[in-house]
Amino acid sequence: MTAQALILFGHGARDPRWAAPFERLQLILREQLPQTRVELAFLEFMSPTLPELVRELAGHGCDDITVVPVFFGQGGHVLRDLPPMVDGLRLAHPGIRLKVAAAVGEDDSVLRTIAAYCVTSMQP
Amino acid sequence: MTAQALILFGHGARDPRWAAPFERLQLILREQLPQTRVELAFLEFMSPTLPELVRELAGHGCDDITVVPVFFGQGGHVLRDLPPMVDGLRLAHPGIRLKVAAAVGEDDSVLRTIAAYCVTSMQP
Repeated sequence: MTAQALILFGHGARDPRWAAPFERLQLILREQLPQTRVELAFLEFMSPTLPELVRELAGHGCDDITVVPVFFGQGGHVLRDLPPMVDGLRLAHPGIRLKVAAAVGEDDSVLRTIAAYCVTSMQP
Repeated sequence: MTAQALILFGHGARDPRWAAPFERLQLILREQLPQTRVELAFLEFMSPTLPELVRELAGHGCDDITVVPVFFGQGGHVLRDLPPMVDGLRLAHPGIRLKVAAAVGEDDSVLRTIAAYCVTSMQP
């Protein structure tokens, strides 16, 4: 039996209020996936980093980890910084199946829901 | 009769591929709102900036502009950098009604759609 984890990977910011939507997303997913560890990791300014979190999850016996980049755009951080980090983690933790999803902004349903929010925002 | 515009305001990045989801969002909204000018503006690294775009829209007679911050987290840029920029634009363009929505990551439907994408991403 595998022990699954889901990592929501965000940019991070100096202002702690920045993390609020990530924490709400984590709560929604913990409710929906009671058998899965759902954790946050950040590229900079906030902790834990992705390597710190994967090390911790490995210590808890997780062997199937999905990383979802909670970024709108790929390019920049997602295409440049994340792949070498993931390569290093796969070398360091060969027993873990580590999968990386496309950034959430690549998903058509996400974009269509954002579009609906924009339309609502225009109303007086 | 008012001339409406919708501005999708993003962070911007050095890598041009980063803008792809913003451009897809713009296309979706242009289809849904054929009477509205739907434009992109960026905080840094990409152009136009928000002041440049508002000046251009004002020159085209737009008098009702909604700015939607396409950011997950408020805090940082959205709470610190955007409000003084908007104050300056209201002073510079008193004839324009300039509305600023909450960041898209504050919207519950957006978070729930991202959650659904995360769940799908975990499947083998």
